[in-house]
Amino acid sequence: MSRVQPFRFDREEGVFHLIDQRRLPHEECWVAARCAADAADAIRSMVVRGAPAIGVTAAYGMVLAHSAGDDLAAADHALRQSRPTAVNLFHALDLVRPHWGDARAVLRVAEKLWADVEATERAISLHGAAMLEGQVLTHCNTGPLATGGFGTALGAIVEAHRQGRIHHVWVDETRPYLQGARLTAWELGRFEVPFTLITDSMAAWMMAQGRVDVVMLGVDRMAMNGDFANKIGTYGLGVLARHHGIPFYAALPTSTVDPDLSSGAEIPIEQRDPDEVRVVGPHRIVSVDVPAAHPAFDVTPHGLLTGIVTERGVLHPPFRRALERALS
Amino acid sequence: MSRVQPFRFDREEGVFHLIDQRRLPHEECWVAARCAADAADAIRSMVVRGAPAIGVTAAYGMVLAHSAGDDLAAADHALRQSRPTAVNLFHALDLVRPHWGDARAVLRVAEKLWADVEATERAISLHGAAMLEGQVLTHCNTGPLATGGFGTALGAIVEAHRQGRIHHVWVDETRPYLQGARLTAWELGRFEVPFTLITDSMAAWMMAQGRVDVVMLGVDRMAMNGDFANKIGTYGLGVLARHHGIPFYAALPTSTVDPDLSSGAEIPIEQRDPDEVRVVGPHRIVSVDVPAAHPAFDVTPHGLLTGIVTERGVLHPPFRRALERALS
Repeated sequence: MSRVQPFRFDREEGVFHLIDQRRLPHEECWVAARCAADAADAIRSMVVRGAPAIGVTAAYGMVLAHSAGDDLAAADHALRQSRPTAVNLFHALDLVRPHWGDARAVLRVAEKLWADVEATERAISLHGAAMLEGQVLTHCNTGPLATGGFGTALGAIVEAHRQGRIHHVWVDETRPYLQGARLTAWELGRFEVPFTLITDSMAAWMMAQGRVDVVMLGVDRMAMNGDFANKIGTYGLGVLARHHGIPFYAALPTSTVDPDLSSGAEIPIEQRDPDEVRVVGPHRIVSVDVPAAHPAFDVTPHGLLTGIVTERGVLHPPFRRALERALS
Repeated sequence: MSRVQPFRFDREEGVFHLIDQRRLPHEECWVAARCAADAADAIRSMVVRGAPAIGVTAAYGMVLAHSAGDDLAAADHALRQSRPTAVNLFHALDLVRPHWGDARAVLRVAEKLWADVEATERAISLHGAAMLEGQVLTHCNTGPLATGGFGTALGAIVEAHRQGRIHHVWVDETRPYLQGARLTAWELGRFEVPFTLITDSMAAWMMAQGRVDVVMLGVDRMAMNGDFANKIGTYGLGVLARHHGIPFYAALPTSTVDPDLSSGAEIPIEQRDPDEVRVVGPHRIVSVDVPAAHPAFDVTPHGLLTGIVTERGVLHPPFRRALERALS
C-alpha cells in the first residue's frame, strides 16, 4: 500500500511543491509555489483542494511570504480571498497571524498544523471505520489528496477495508469537477480497495437494489447544529439515504466546525464559474452561451445525519449539544 | 420557433437520413441508412435514440430491407436486437410484420406510424402542459429528437411555455451520455424556452430552495401498474420530488406501456458498456482499467408518481385500473 501526499515543502529552497490535482489521474505534475501569491493561485485554481489541505497550503503560503519577502498583510489577504467557503483557510491563517514577526515561528506553526492534520485524521479514520460495513458509497474526494494526512471519510473507508469490515466502495464521479472519478478512484486504486465508479445519478438505484449499506462523506463547513456544506450532490444523497433507511455519516476534523454559525442557513454558498458545468476537462459539452448554474456546494440539514465522525469520536443527536461538548 | 426533426425519408433514393445525435450540439451531421443493418446500427450506436424515434426508425428499417433486398427475417431480427429495452421497437416491427409480402404496404405502415406519433404527441403536449406551472425540472431528452414528433415531456414543456404557464426549465445534464446537456438544451434553445443547465447532482438542491415547482420526464417502458423504466437518474428524482412535496409526472404514449409486464420487477435493465462512464465525448476521464458500472436505466415505482400523462389524458392513481382503461 503506497502513501499518497498532495504536497511537500523544500526548506532549503523555500519552495512548496504541490501535485497538480487538476491533471490527475492522467499525469502526476508538480507545481512549485515560491511566494504567497503562488499558494493563493494554487488554492483558487484548484491545484490543491479539500478543506484541510487548503489550510496547510495557506499556512505554508505565509511561510513563503516570509522567504519571498512579500508584504505580509497583502499575502494574508490574498490567501483569505482564494476560497471563501473553506473555514480551514481562515483557521490556519489565524494561527499564523500572531507570529508574523518571526519567520521561524511561522514555519513551526505550519509544520505543527500539518502534523496535527495527520494525528487528527488517524483518529477520524479509526472512529469512522467502526461505523462502516459491507458496501460504502462516498462522494467527492476526502482522501490524502484532499487533506495532506490520511483523509477523513476516505481515511475511514481505507481503514475499514484494512480491518476487513467493508468489501466494496461505490465512488460517485462528482460532477462537475469529477473529484470522485479522478481522485478518489485513483487513491482507492493505490490503496488496493475494491471499488466501482458510477455517475452521481446512479447512487439512488444502487441504494434501491440493496447494494449500499452505508454512506460516508466529508464536510466543507459545519454549523453548530450539525448542518453542513459539502460538495454539490451531498444533500441529495442525504435525502436518498434517509428514504432507503441507510446510515448517513459525515466525517470531519472539529476544526471544520464553525462556532460562529448557528445553522446551515448562515453558510454562504460559493457560486463557481458556470463554464465548469459546460466542460469536462478539455472537452466542451455545450457552447459558452448555454445558460448554466454552478453552486459548488449544498447544505445538508443535520436531521439527515446518522452521526458525525470526528477525531474525538462519533457524535450522535442532538448534535448541537454533542458539538458544543466536542469543541469545548 | 423552428421545427426540429431527427430524420427524413427520401423515397426516390430509398434512403432514411438520420441526424447524428451523438455529434449534437457541435455539428449537424446526417447519416444515411440504406438497408436494415444500417438502421439497426443507427439504433444500437445511438445515432438515433428515444423510444418513439426508435420505433419509427425500426419501421423504416423494414422499408429499407425491402428496397435493399435484405432477408426480411434477418432484418427483423437485427432490428429487434438493436436496443432490447425499447418496447416501441417491438411494437413497430409487429405492426410491419403482417405486410412483409408487400413493400408498398410496409411503407404505408411506416408512414402511418410516424403520423400517429405526431398526433399522439400533440395530444400528450396539450394534456401535459395543463399540469405544469412556474419552474419545471426535466431529465434526459424527450423532445422531437427523441420522438420524431413534438416530444412527450418536452413537448408538454414547450407547449406550457407557449401558453405562458411556465417561465423556466431546469435541464439535468443526464450523465453518462449527456442527452440533457447536448439535446434538450439544444432543443429548448431552438424553441426559445428559458432554461438553465445543471449537473444531475444539483437537482436536489434546486428543489430544497423552492426553485422547482414540478418534475416531468419521459418513459422508456412502463408496466401495467405504472412502474416504469427510464434513463438512469429518474428513480432518484422521484424520491427527491416526493421528499420535497413536488409533483412528479411521467409523460408517454400508451404504446410505451407493455401489457405483458405486471410490475417494474419484470423490466430487464440494459447494462451498457461501462466505458461510457469513463469518457465524456472524446475525453477520457479515467483509464479503461478503472472499474465502472453503467446501468442505462432505473425503475421508478408507481407510488412516486403524481400522474401519468398520455395522449388519452392524465391518469391518476390507482394506475393499474387507469392504464387498463386507457389501453382498452
